Amino acid sequence: AEKMELESVEDTLNKYIPPAELTEVKRILYGPEFLRTLQIEKQAGDIANNEDFELAAYEMPLSQNPRQVKIGLIQNKIISPTDAPVSTQIHSLHERISKIAEAAALSGVNILCMQEAWTMPFAFCTREKIPWTDFAESAENGATTKLCQELARKHNMVVVSPILERDETHGGVLWNTAVVISNTGAVMGKSRKNHIPRVGDFNESTYYMEGNTGHKVFQTSFGRIGINICYGRHHPLNWMMYGINGAEIVFNPSATVGALSEPMWPIEARCAAIANHYYACGINRVGTETFSNEFTSGDGKKAHKDFGHFYGSSYIASPDGSRTPGLSRTKDGLLVVAVDLNICQEISDKWCFRMTARHELYADAIKQSTELDYKRDIVYENSLSFLH
Amino acid sequence: AEKMELESVEDTLNKYIPPAELTEVKRILYGPEFLRTLQIEKQAGDIANNEDFELAAYEMPLSQNPRQVKIGLIQNKIISPTDAPVSTQIHSLHERISKIAEAAALSGVNILCMQEAWTMPFAFCTREKIPWTDFAESAENGATTKLCQELARKHNMVVVSPILERDETHGGVLWNTAVVISNTGAVMGKSRKNHIPRVGDFNESTYYMEGNTGHKVFQTSFGRIGINICYGRHHPLNWMMYGINGAEIVFNPSATVGALSEPMWPIEARCAAIANHYYACGINRVGTETFSNEFTSGDGKKAHKDFGHFYGSSYIASPDGSRTPGLSRTKDGLLVVAVDLNICQEISDKWCFRMTARHELYADAIKQSTELDYKRDIVYENSLSFLH
Repeated sequence: AEKMELESVEDTLNKYIPPAELTEVKRILYGPEFLRTLQIEKQAGDIANNEDFELAAYEMPLSQNPRQVKIGLIQNKIISPTDAPVSTQIHSLHERISKIAEAAALSGVNILCMQEAWTMPFAFCTREKIPWTDFAESAENGATTKLCQELARKHNMVVVSPILERDETHGGVLWNTAVVISNTGAVMGKSRKNHIPRVGDFNESTYYMEGNTGHKVFQTSFGRIGINICYGRHHPLNWMMYGINGAEIVFNPSATVGALSEPMWPIEARCAAIANHYYACGINRVGTETFSNEFTSGDGKKAHKDFGHFYGSSYIASPDGSRTPGLSRTKDGLLVVAVDLNICQEISDKWCFRMTARHELYADAIKQSTELDYKRDIVYENSLSFLH
Repeated sequence: AEKMELESVEDTLNKYIPPAELTEVKRILYGPEFLRTLQIEKQAGDIANNEDFELAAYEMPLSQNPRQVKIGLIQNKIISPTDAPVSTQIHSLHERISKIAEAAALSGVNILCMQEAWTMPFAFCTREKIPWTDFAESAENGATTKLCQELARKHNMVVVSPILERDETHGGVLWNTAVVISNTGAVMGKSRKNHIPRVGDFNESTYYMEGNTGHKVFQTSFGRIGINICYGRHHPLNWMMYGINGAEIVFNPSATVGALSEPMWPIEARCAAIANHYYACGINRVGTETFSNEFTSGDGKKAHKDFGHFYGSSYIASPDGSRTPGLSRTKDGLLVVAVDLNICQEISDKWCFRMTARHELYADAIKQSTELDYKRDIVYENSLSFLH
């Protein structure tokens, strides 16, 4: 029996805390209460009702000189069971996401991003290669990219599509890759996951290696975007390089479960938005995925067939330190947020983190620290220093 | 009339949310509920009552092989008015902190850290030099260092004492400096603030410049410690270098007010603890400080004599992603936390952020990004690329 999952921290706060204190608690936990809830467009709301997914829409604070774009994030469960034919599993997700994308379009979304490896269950816990490697596709002309090109053209929308990529040109190896598709339908390029976990069930280095596409930023019609996939959110330098390359929005398509990471989830993307003066968008899948064959988790516990609850909770953090509420912890959802890209430079000019960053100093310090004969700068008490 | 300040977010959650949901809300917001409240030692509690400061004590989760030390953080208001003679102001703070240090010693604290520039009001908003520069002292043998040496010897306690430093050896210039004093009473050295704000009332570059002591880590009898002063908490690379040099505990003595930074406060030190596998300790002063002469804040508002409420809320974050509750937003306080330093390596081995960090790559990337002719890695849509 699955345990009853809490629906949302924000809903719980709203439900129990009296208004005067609630305003102050939310200011401290989530940032200034300037976030405006947007009216849901009727047709979009109908799709959300019919298809049973959450649709939440907000507008973040505006600068004097707004350059507003609408971001859409999709979080979802898998549809078909994990032992259905691969083509069935992919097809059912293609259908589902196409419908949610339509609601996004009706809500005026300009840039839409799906969750990590969105066409498949997150099966890397199994350490089996077949059938999971059969989910891999060409980033440039796989079926999923073709679908996203159609969606992009039809809805005049930039689509960021994170998939398991097979790179035929270079030995047919696999990558964890986000494909970026322009609102014209053209494939602009791809961005690979830069940091690969070796943590418990996340045996992903069994399947693919650290990305070699660096920290590209894509100049779309609706702003400059970067993609920091999943475990890369634990690496501040990874976040930083997207900022250095000019990103105004960085997506973090993820797959992560409660016991492992949930207290870190509200912290890392939000800290990146603050430190780098851009919007950071955390997307996590939802639900529990069950596999045919049992596997172990490197934690001394018995073999089992699922590895816990993906807790959704997708959100957007602003460079001003505030954030939106999270989507549900249990339901599919579409988060629509109007953001003002001009806030990025405005906050940068206010806080001056880039100006005061002293990057020259750190480039040298980090370089030195990677040398095999690096001596750490540790101070010992004078009288004892000869001992060391 | 000063507005009524919320006492503490955690108290409000505890007061209103029913137990079952509260456990889940706190797990998500603050990390696993393994934090144990420690019994307050009777004599320490008496001092706290008599002297009217909050005393809170916790034990964080233990590894199989614990190496436990007790950290103490002090947050406080100034005592004398800001127009009292400088020596009176300093003396009153010396007395007050000595008493709180005694309660820390009675609570078994091994390493004690005071707030930023703890011997003075945070007067840098005024942009006046006199009398504020008269608060500056020698790090090696000023009166405040001498007091801290006595406290250290008397209580067998490492003392971290952040002061305004005057460096007579190098032209008598000022620095924002933390002095590290061994439990033997010896001055181990000093660590200067690496990043200086130019934000609103925080005109600190008027008084002192970016520190030149790098990211020293001090091997004390109770673990390796580093000090990242105030605005340095906005800089992930600054946090990182203390970790690279082997810090197990990094203190962040600060002075920061609500309107400006409060939603960032629970995020940044905690993110640093997660990213760098060490304990991070945020300390912020408390109360509103009023000055004789009015000043402006660069925000279009009228001249005024105070710049808002320092919100305290000092806390400790663990490498496991959890954190303690914050001290009061309104009262002086002593936070005593028993931490297990062995957790640092254990969590590092679990999450592998250092192993997967790819620092060689980033050292080069950051170096290149500082070149005057750096070209950002921006991808344009193919058909339009000739335009750029």
